[in-house]
Amino acid sequence: MRVALDAMGGDNAPAVNIEGAAEAVNEWPDIEVVLVGDGELLQKELSVRKYPKSKITVLHASESITMDEQLSQALRRKKDSSIRRAFELVKAAEADAVVSAGHSGITMALALLLIGTAKGVERPAIAALIPSLKKEFVLLDVGANVDCTPQNLLQFALMADAYCRLILDRPKPKIALLSIGEEPTKGNELTKEAFRLLKAADINFFGNMEGRDIFKGDADVVVCDGFIGNVVLKSSEGLAEATIKMLRKEITSLTTGRIGYFFIKSALKNFKKKTDYAEYGGAPLLGINGTCIICHGRSTTKAIKNAVRMAADFSSKRVYEAISEEIGQAQPREKTVVAG
Amino acid sequence: MRVALDAMGGDNAPAVNIEGAAEAVNEWPDIEVVLVGDGELLQKELSVRKYPKSKITVLHASESITMDEQLSQALRRKKDSSIRRAFELVKAAEADAVVSAGHSGITMALALLLIGTAKGVERPAIAALIPSLKKEFVLLDVGANVDCTPQNLLQFALMADAYCRLILDRPKPKIALLSIGEEPTKGNELTKEAFRLLKAADINFFGNMEGRDIFKGDADVVVCDGFIGNVVLKSSEGLAEATIKMLRKEITSLTTGRIGYFFIKSALKNFKKKTDYAEYGGAPLLGINGTCIICHGRSTTKAIKNAVRMAADFSSKRVYEAISEEIGQAQPREKTVVAG
Repeated sequence: MRVALDAMGGDNAPAVNIEGAAEAVNEWPDIEVVLVGDGELLQKELSVRKYPKSKITVLHASESITMDEQLSQALRRKKDSSIRRAFELVKAAEADAVVSAGHSGITMALALLLIGTAKGVERPAIAALIPSLKKEFVLLDVGANVDCTPQNLLQFALMADAYCRLILDRPKPKIALLSIGEEPTKGNELTKEAFRLLKAADINFFGNMEGRDIFKGDADVVVCDGFIGNVVLKSSEGLAEATIKMLRKEITSLTTGRIGYFFIKSALKNFKKKTDYAEYGGAPLLGINGTCIICHGRSTTKAIKNAVRMAADFSSKRVYEAISEEIGQAQPREKTVVAG
Repeated sequence: MRVALDAMGGDNAPAVNIEGAAEAVNEWPDIEVVLVGDGELLQKELSVRKYPKSKITVLHASESITMDEQLSQALRRKKDSSIRRAFELVKAAEADAVVSAGHSGITMALALLLIGTAKGVERPAIAALIPSLKKEFVLLDVGANVDCTPQNLLQFALMADAYCRLILDRPKPKIALLSIGEEPTKGNELTKEAFRLLKAADINFFGNMEGRDIFKGDADVVVCDGFIGNVVLKSSEGLAEATIKMLRKEITSLTTGRIGYFFIKSALKNFKKKTDYAEYGGAPLLGINGTCIICHGRSTTKAIKNAVRMAADFSSKRVYEAISEEIGQAQPREKTVVAG
């Protein structure tokens, strides 16, 4: 599998991107990486690293996209940006997948422009994997679409179903709809109609799930619109950080706390690592006609490495084809239900 | 101030309700409580407690509302429910405010039915006070309205402004709009239009705030629709609980962790108390023509006591009148902006 990695995207680029690529090809012999970005810089950085030389190639791109770039400007003017070149590689079948920790909105727009949606898909969705008390769960959409229709939410459920089956090895994933009460009558106009569609679909539908329960880990997938998903993802991230800070303050304010803190600080670190989205890897952009993994801007080397692995898996297991198939099969069934 | 307390509402009713009432009148001489519920039971329970006897009276109500009660049934059939009787006391000017830890949807419906909205208010909102790294902030709406208009969000901001000024002693509260990016152009249709209205209003508007930043505590108020607010509130609650559990597991899995845990466990307890919404008190239902404090179903004695105090403060400072005034003043100004 050949992964095109946007070497210039992310807060810690290109250092962690190069290091992540090197670690990935060192660890997994089936993976090749094309590093896309400032060719001279990348070659220089690569020359001091140890890895099987044939497994990483460099594609020069003279421009890069900053985090505060305007979407229209990036699309119209920056024709030689690293992220654009990465997608062009996939379009030309010279790479199998794209990984980027850069501007997620622009990454998504370029994915749609150059790769397009998978057959039958109305809107792509970003699917984040979230730690919980039991297993991780997939939360989607976390930001690709700010205003969604019930039909969009149904498609998100079907896309996540394929993700769970093919990548997470969960053959019959439980799919929940994020709402403000468990009863079908609870929710807003969007979720009440989406509930009806999800119930009629050929999936293992769990029903509505309240915000309170998502971190218990009883569902494999939690579906919501991209505005809410983004707010939940980011507020959870903010709360987790704030919790660690408040707790540290609480502990060190105790007389015995300082002693205790000495004994537990590696536990706090472990916990932070396990729950830090920046460490966690990437989120697939589901529903495009190919593979793209979007990483957190603050991604670490480990996150980039994991995202490269994830990209290779999504591509080799042809998740985007499975998504098209699942949506194609759901369409007529869904229509029958609407007519009835 | 005379507070009508629904003695039968909540998971721990009537025990914590009675205890909370007794603690409130013991601590604050300006407060009287009318306990509304099963008269015989309440009198019996009160007889074993120490408090100034004239400060608590009992009003018998033969019915109570359960947590899984249907709204229509509760309104139509249960004419002698404790929560209904509590509102009737306020309507008859025999009490100044209502406190309930019972079914929040039914409480709200009865508030609207018997007390009505304050002049100029389109929709009431539930305003939760949330701990953060700095000061607490007001999040609203957390569940009164599942589908909102931009104008609703503007009114929520004005209502919270009055809450902050009169109750929290913050003379120029910073008011943020919950969205998925800081720029005015980021958000969904609702928030983009609400941004425009909030910017034009006579408030200290902070701009958009991302989920990631709300727990930093830089805003006094965070405005959103009731669906999102409820999801954020409950998922934060769920995450905080899950965090404590995961952390405990992480700590006790370390060899040194068990020793450390011994030294820090009171810090964990303190932290939990400080962040547990069930301990925290109540959330005012802003925008009705009177005072109603809605408590968490799992409220403790301390939460009930604090909610009774809060109800007395809201009533004595006539927050609902200030809200009407603020909304009345905002109306023409807002219209001018729309016309221009």
